[in-house]
Amino acid sequence: MALRGKWVLICFWLFPICLSAAKEAKQKLRFGKNGELKILQIADLHYANGKSTRCLDVLPSQRASCSDLNTTAFIHRIIVDEKPNLIVFTGDNIYGYDATDPAKSMDAAFAPAIASNIPWVAVLGNHDQEGSLSREGVMKHIAGMKNTLSIVNPPEAHIIDGFGNYNLEVAGVEGTDFENKSVLNLYFLDSGDYSTVPFISGYGWIKPSQQLWFQQTSEKLRKAYMNGPVPQKEPAPALAYFHIPLPEYASFDSSNFTGVKQERISSASVNSGFFTTIVEAGDVKAVFTGHDHVNDFCGKLTGINLCYAGGFGYHAYGKAGWSRRARVVIVNLEKTENGRWEDVKSIKTWKRLDDQDLTGIDGQALWSKNFGGNRRKKQDGGS
Amino acid sequence: MALRGKWVLICFWLFPICLSAAKEAKQKLRFGKNGELKILQIADLHYANGKSTRCLDVLPSQRASCSDLNTTAFIHRIIVDEKPNLIVFTGDNIYGYDATDPAKSMDAAFAPAIASNIPWVAVLGNHDQEGSLSREGVMKHIAGMKNTLSIVNPPEAHIIDGFGNYNLEVAGVEGTDFENKSVLNLYFLDSGDYSTVPFISGYGWIKPSQQLWFQQTSEKLRKAYMNGPVPQKEPAPALAYFHIPLPEYASFDSSNFTGVKQERISSASVNSGFFTTIVEAGDVKAVFTGHDHVNDFCGKLTGINLCYAGGFGYHAYGKAGWSRRARVVIVNLEKTENGRWEDVKSIKTWKRLDDQDLTGIDGQALWSKNFGGNRRKKQDGGS
Repeated sequence: MALRGKWVLICFWLFPICLSAAKEAKQKLRFGKNGELKILQIADLHYANGKSTRCLDVLPSQRASCSDLNTTAFIHRIIVDEKPNLIVFTGDNIYGYDATDPAKSMDAAFAPAIASNIPWVAVLGNHDQEGSLSREGVMKHIAGMKNTLSIVNPPEAHIIDGFGNYNLEVAGVEGTDFENKSVLNLYFLDSGDYSTVPFISGYGWIKPSQQLWFQQTSEKLRKAYMNGPVPQKEPAPALAYFHIPLPEYASFDSSNFTGVKQERISSASVNSGFFTTIVEAGDVKAVFTGHDHVNDFCGKLTGINLCYAGGFGYHAYGKAGWSRRARVVIVNLEKTENGRWEDVKSIKTWKRLDDQDLTGIDGQALWSKNFGGNRRKKQDGGS
Repeated sequence: MALRGKWVLICFWLFPICLSAAKEAKQKLRFGKNGELKILQIADLHYANGKSTRCLDVLPSQRASCSDLNTTAFIHRIIVDEKPNLIVFTGDNIYGYDATDPAKSMDAAFAPAIASNIPWVAVLGNHDQEGSLSREGVMKHIAGMKNTLSIVNPPEAHIIDGFGNYNLEVAGVEGTDFENKSVLNLYFLDSGDYSTVPFISGYGWIKPSQQLWFQQTSEKLRKAYMNGPVPQKEPAPALAYFHIPLPEYASFDSSNFTGVKQERISSASVNSGFFTTIVEAGDVKAVFTGHDHVNDFCGKLTGINLCYAGGFGYHAYGKAGWSRRARVVIVNLEKTENGRWEDVKSIKTWKRLDDQDLTGIDGQALWSKNFGGNRRKKQDGGS
């Protein structure tokens, strides 16, 4: 505490340096010596008050003893088993209506992630602010928690809608040509809660200000990656995480996705154009959302994978007998013949179920450098 | 010329003042003493080289003598007959491929408007830049022409896609409470030409940077109108003009529009969200585009009229025997019992055909203060 007090005092005098240092410390993500990065997505915890908060939609045999603590236990188990490098909570982390004290609910919800000492981030859903904390309040609380890389909003965006828009860069392996380059980019966005516009009902959407920030960030990252040192021919691949699915999630049927669709796509009732914006940017290979708990598919549209995680939390609606689940993404680097790690070679995904064996299902390749990496090149050729 | 030279010299020393003065001079639009403003929309002139440029899709009897000069004659006739207060050219003003000298084509295309001494503006279509001038070059040429209120891009938008995004304010009647308020707002946008994005074919679209500028402009105008002097309860109504129709134009059939749909809606193949953005902004009551020459309908969706003008130019494709046409919009102010002009009461439209009598067709009301003006109020009531 004494040390922290001094640091605050020094920071008061050296504010810009401290801000930059804090940001730098927060954004340190790097591929490990195995050339691999694993991301665990946890969607729709709907955490409320712990033991006293009962489960929804479980089998009669599970009902008596089931509470938020089952959600906590599942987070513990899957972290121990998967050992991810980053944990992403994609909103409805707490269920505001039932949370007596939203800050305490968040502390409990994220506790297993914090205890694991693995970096973690969160974005907001449509239920997080339904308690006594506003969306800004919820996101500020999250950004102040231990081990999180979440921030409330990017300092470079002077005007931006929502709370919890930010990006993370993942550097290549230390000691290689890519150690100072971001070889994988992660975007996190606030997809809003509910429409406040007359004549438009339903859920929120990603606004022009957020899309412009995304575009400018993507362009900056593209330039850095495609210019020296070690200039690359393509932008680094990227993944985007947020809560509410885009209207384009409704483009699929079981003939062209992996996973299941057991309810309608609860996107905003209007199209705010973010799918167009990410297709135009050209770096995002997959989008990951939650929100529809009993949908867990991944489908590919215009070169971009649109994926659900499937519902994770026991106080969230679900389907009795259909296991709560999480989505894992693994990103692997290319290895040269002389054994040096380079840029991203492939992105794969699967899901893990909360059953006795944490069964893995629906493994699939989302992107591979050799098959999906030369879109820009084709265009330069005159299409 | 001598006076102009001196002015340039003075302006060099007083640059900010001159800039502001130039802008001010350009943006002076005001309702007249009759409480009425009439806007003539001219879509798809497709002007090329004048007399030597032949007509497309006319009756065999018209073919021999028909050229760009028929387009010029129609502009003259309709201006004389309608006496509009503003003329809006909504793109494909020239047909770049056939224009030997695009600057000369523009000079000829806009000559009747300039000769009328009526203020005029233009936005770009997808064909304007297909000659030897770039889109920026075309828009710069337009912005430098006599009597135009067009500008290349708004000085307050530091980053904006395209060329020819700007807005005009129309002040209330001089000597009334509204003489210093913009009671009607006009937005002009560059809807692009063609997609440059791999995997997305077809036409361009309105980008996030343009939508953010629109949003911020709309918000600024709303605040100015709803705050003193003479604070109003609703934002002032607005109209938006650009070239390529939004994907939402495809929402209609003959049961719910006025006019005709004789070809498919050639919007961008993706939805960039501008319809959502204008619904959210709440001020735009009608959108006016061109691009599809043999569609001329107006349909209403989510409270917003989506209107075509119908093709005007004779070197543009059309339909033989189906008259070239233009759209007129008339905006009328409210009059108090003691005869003072106030805010906008109604917005109406019709079309005029290039036949012997310049026949007027399809008159319809687009918006009325008493029926469409209290959307926000309803929401404040708790919907």
